[in-house]
Amino acid sequence: MNLHDLERQLNFLQEIDRLKSVVRLSPLIDRSRRENSAEHSWHLALYALVLAEHAAGTVDVVRVVKMLLIHDIVEIDAGDVPFHVPSTHDGQAERERLAAERIFGLLPEVQAVEFRDLWFEFEAAESDDAKFAKALDRFQPMLHNAATDGGTWVECEVTLEQIEARCRPPIQGGAPALWEAAAGMAAGHFRKQSQAD
Amino acid sequence: MNLHDLERQLNFLQEIDRLKSVVRLSPLIDRSRRENSAEHSWHLALYALVLAEHAAGTVDVVRVVKMLLIHDIVEIDAGDVPFHVPSTHDGQAERERLAAERIFGLLPEVQAVEFRDLWFEFEAAESDDAKFAKALDRFQPMLHNAATDGGTWVECEVTLEQIEARCRPPIQGGAPALWEAAAGMAAGHFRKQSQAD
Ligand SMILES: [Ca+2]
Repeated sequence: MNLHDLERQLNFLQEIDRLKSVVRLSPLIDRSRRENSAEHSWHLALYALVLAEHAAGTVDVVRVVKMLLIHDIVEIDAGDVPFHVPSTHDGQAERERLAAERIFGLLPEVQAVEFRDLWFEFEAAESDDAKFAKALDRFQPMLHNAATDGGTWVECEVTLEQIEARCRPPIQGGAPALWEAAAGMAAGHFRKQSQAD
Repeated sequence: MNLHDLERQLNFLQEIDRLKSVVRLSPLIDRSRRENSAEHSWHLALYALVLAEHAAGTVDVVRVVKMLLIHDIVEIDAGDVPFHVPSTHDGQAERERLAAERIFGLLPEVQAVEFRDLWFEFEAAESDDAKFAKALDRFQPMLHNAATDGGTWVECEVTLEQIEARCRPPIQGGAPALWEAAAGMAAGHFRKQSQAD
């Protein structure tokens, strides 16, 4: 460590404050406003700590927590693309890759490489750690939607079949018991909705 | 694990969503609004990951990150008390203790005990891990204040001597190099302010 390294570290920590201003489509559970990506990342880190026993593979919870803490930082440059609005996804992977280079590149070299590698591992969703992290990232909004009379399911006019197609593979692949729980919540919501119609 | 445990875990994860609505006195660095305690906790976890090499003692970064992720959850019941407004601190320790019992008590017993113990360890600020965590919790607002022309220093009419008295012991005790950096930023702010007067 030298002074220059500490300056780079503080510069990075100041830059990522901007993630608090990246607003997601998902509502808070009390519906007072939409969730931002910084508090979402905090919430997911706690999901990982609390739900680790439900991971499909053998996971290193520490790496999963780290992945979840940094997984959305690229949105500072690339913005959030709503999961249930596929038309916004074009070119997003490339925007996020450039963002990862720029933002993690603010850190001293060793840390920059570590964070960038971890972020790419999360994106690839191939390792057991990344699969579990991705499963939680898909599971948390389902819990929010179920707790807010439909949340983004209603806002984006998503069907139960679309939820099944989009959410089952990542959640079931990373945490089978959580898919069971989520599927039950989604089914409950759509049953209630069809009764109300 | 049984179904009842998963229900308790999801109940806890839903309950702590409320931390996103606990608003602190500190501004975001872009000054668009005040920071909430959930995104603050996310930010601090990243401070721990990035700045671990500056810890005074031998720390287990994982435990430090966990502490910082849960350290403010008690504010859901007890509210945030601004660091530089001592008149609000009366009775806060007891309110927070009761909050820790209630909120962590939502979890299955083994996890409830783990989180509660970790929270008490943070509060006691005696272990090397807790000292480093506390140092970061005091350091981050100083960085924000320096980056926002004074932030809560100006709002609470805090003097450089008060900052020294309140912040030096916890920050220097847990991370001496960070106190050096913070003291330099604070001195820079007050020098600029006295020139402007
Ligand atoms: Ca705090």
